[in-house]
Amino acid sequence: MLAEQGQKPNTLVVACCDSRAAPEMIFDSIPGELFVVRNVANMVPPYEPDGQYHSTSAALEFAVQALRVQDIIVMGHGRCGGIRAALDPNAEPLSPGDFIGKWMNLVAPAAEQIQGNSDMTPAERQTALERISIRNSIANLRTFPCVKILEERGKLRIHGAWFDISNGELWLMNPISQDFVRLDVDAAVSLA
Amino acid sequence: MLAEQGQKPNTLVVACCDSRAAPEMIFDSIPGELFVVRNVANMVPPYEPDGQYHSTSAALEFAVQALRVQDIIVMGHGRCGGIRAALDPNAEPLSPGDFIGKWMNLVAPAAEQIQGNSDMTPAERQTALERISIRNSIANLRTFPCVKILEERGKLRIHGAWFDISNGELWLMNPISQDFVRLDVDAAVSLA
Amino acid sequence: MLAEQGQKPNTLVVACCDSRAAPEMIFDSIPGELFVVRNVANMVPPYEPDGQYHSTSAALEFAVQALRVQDIIVMGHGRCGGIRAALDPNAEPLSPGDFIGKWMNLVAPAAEQIQGNSDMTPAERQTALERISIRNSIANLRTFPCVKILEERGKLRIHGAWFDISNGELWLMNPISQDFVRLDVDAAVSLA
Amino acid sequence: MLAEQGQKPNTLVVACCDSRAAPEMIFDSIPGELFVVRNVANMVPPYEPDGQYHSTSAALEFAVQALRVQDIIVMGHGRCGGIRAALDPNAEPLSPGDFIGKWMNLVAPAAEQIQGNSDMTPAERQTALERISIRNSIANLRTFPCVKILEERGKLRIHGAWFDISNGELWLMNPISQDFVRLDVDAAVSLA
Repeated sequence: MLAEQGQKPNTLVVACCDSRAAPEMIFDSIPGELFVVRNVANMVPPYEPDGQYHSTSAALEFAVQALRVQDIIVMGHGRCGGIRAALDPNAEPLSPGDFIGKWMNLVAPAAEQIQGNSDMTPAERQTALERISIRNSIANLRTFPCVKILEERGKLRIHGAWFDISNGELWLMNPISQDFVRLDVDAAVSLA
Repeated sequence: MLAEQGQKPNTLVVACCDSRAAPEMIFDSIPGELFVVRNVANMVPPYEPDGQYHSTSAALEFAVQALRVQDIIVMGHGRCGGIRAALDPNAEPLSPGDFIGKWMNLVAPAAEQIQGNSDMTPAERQTALERISIRNSIANLRTFPCVKILEERGKLRIHGAWFDISNGELWLMNPISQDFVRLDVDAAVSLA
Repeated sequence: MLAEQGQKPNTLVVACCDSRAAPEMIFDSIPGELFVVRNVANMVPPYEPDGQYHSTSAALEFAVQALRVQDIIVMGHGRCGGIRAALDPNAEPLSPGDFIGKWMNLVAPAAEQIQGNSDMTPAERQTALERISIRNSIANLRTFPCVKILEERGKLRIHGAWFDISNGELWLMNPISQDFVRLDVDAAVSLA
Repeated sequence: MLAEQGQKPNTLVVACCDSRAAPEMIFDSIPGELFVVRNVANMVPPYEPDGQYHSTSAALEFAVQALRVQDIIVMGHGRCGGIRAALDPNAEPLSPGDFIGKWMNLVAPAAEQIQGNSDMTPAERQTALERISIRNSIANLRTFPCVKILEERGKLRIHGAWFDISNGELWLMNPISQDFVRLDVDAAVSLA
């Protein structure tokens, strides 16, 4: 049935590869609901129409222009390994290609600033950057002309979310204040 | 508990963003088992240590070098929208950036050859390219030195899989013949 | 009865003057349990035996040396007006004496560092400084020789706590990581 | 709700740290009503704009200038340990810093005079100094220009109160005679 009709998801989720943060489980969704791009640290790069291939931008374009999703959720999570790597001043490249190092450069300025704050604990710095990175990705989302235009016309809604893997709670970003607020289960489910 | 210990997945899955093809559901996995990168058409680009950011390569590097996964599954699926776009001779860019067009260039040579074969039906061409693309991604996987070395040492296994969304059946690629063979449920589950 | 025996509280609470953060309500305590010093932003200044009068240090000395309390809780809270003032770069003195400005100088270095981080929202900066200030006060507590010695001998325990006035939840500071962790009600009550 | 709106207490209470004298219980107030500074013996020091930090003056300034409270209650209580220490001719410093000794110097002249009056019993001397100290603090309150001006304009009312911890009765200071008069419950509640 689902195959015959083609997929008609209403929601694009940009999520992390982390094995503990599958969006289908967090949102308790069924097949066909969520179009999901997953990369390390659930990041959206800025709009770069440079003729190179861009995995995440391609998925975004496909979701917005071909599938015409109505909601985009950028979902980060606690204890993210990519964010931890970005905050580690002694991080060595994992391989000569240093793909993680390059990828995490997308949040390098914010990471540097947070790293310098020794008043915060490592866990506090980690959570802060996880959330900053979500806002950063949302700002990058809006550099895509199609996203910007559709959002302005009220055809597309953008949400930030942060999943606490230690207790399974979901926090949603308030679109005005950009703060993350813990939701009870009913509210979280209604988003998906 | 899972949060305290950090994630220790044994398997990296390269899957598609498609809303009907969530790996956790297909493999019936539990949180912590699968590290999942999802992009349009579940592709792995070739090794390109060019200093640019590469989302999928970063996830691959992280899984292999930091998490030390023992299995990599490249999982395609039927009726893939990305593959359909690659096969459409009249496909227009979805946006001025044409991110999908650029991304699907990764299978452009194979797509062109299939397109020219008018003896096959459209559905046959589609399935054929879905499977060719999986083999193509596996070949690209082996251009990453760390993958190549670990596989040669027997520390890493690479699998191809194709999920039939019309009936929920999983097909596995025979590593010798590179054919896709339908598995009964027991065999599929044993992979994860 | 209570009057005849004199007070024998086991716990000193350093709390804020805020009208929404009365320790007796938060800990559901009864008369006689909590010796409570309340000042703006629940701060403990460093040990300064300079012959000047020091309100908070006097209360601390009385609680530790005369009442021999066994626990000290430094309890901050969300949306603290003193912390907000410390973070406001345009804060004007409230009066020519600028007593709040002088008092909040106790967290000025940390406030300056947090202020400079424009990646965090105002609410995130506020919460971060509220918690940093609690750790700062705990560090100052340990500059008092009597506190330091008694704690080393296991006669005195020091706790950090942060009360979320938006929902009534209490967070306790982990003494090792110094992170604040939300507690369920049972755990919170057992502290008092 | 209370958190969203910010606190809007109408009353500042200067109270003692004593575990038996929590203002919220004595006035049966609800969260948001009372801004409470608590120090040993509920004292207000005189206005000293000397650039040092002053905990109680900072709280006073914040309550009057930022929160614009309309009432200030200086509330003493029976069997106050700080007052007892001030009256003890053999009191030793509790620690080398002698913070209590320094703090209680704020009532030293009155304490000396009372100490010399051997016609009064110890309990009478104690109660007398507790009440003298309240009047002393009220006089100090009026050395703050903002308090003096607002009181003269009828924008701010100042009250003295003394809580009898032996029976739970509240005594209010008559503003003209400066005598303390026991109130029935109705009168006490109307104050808060």
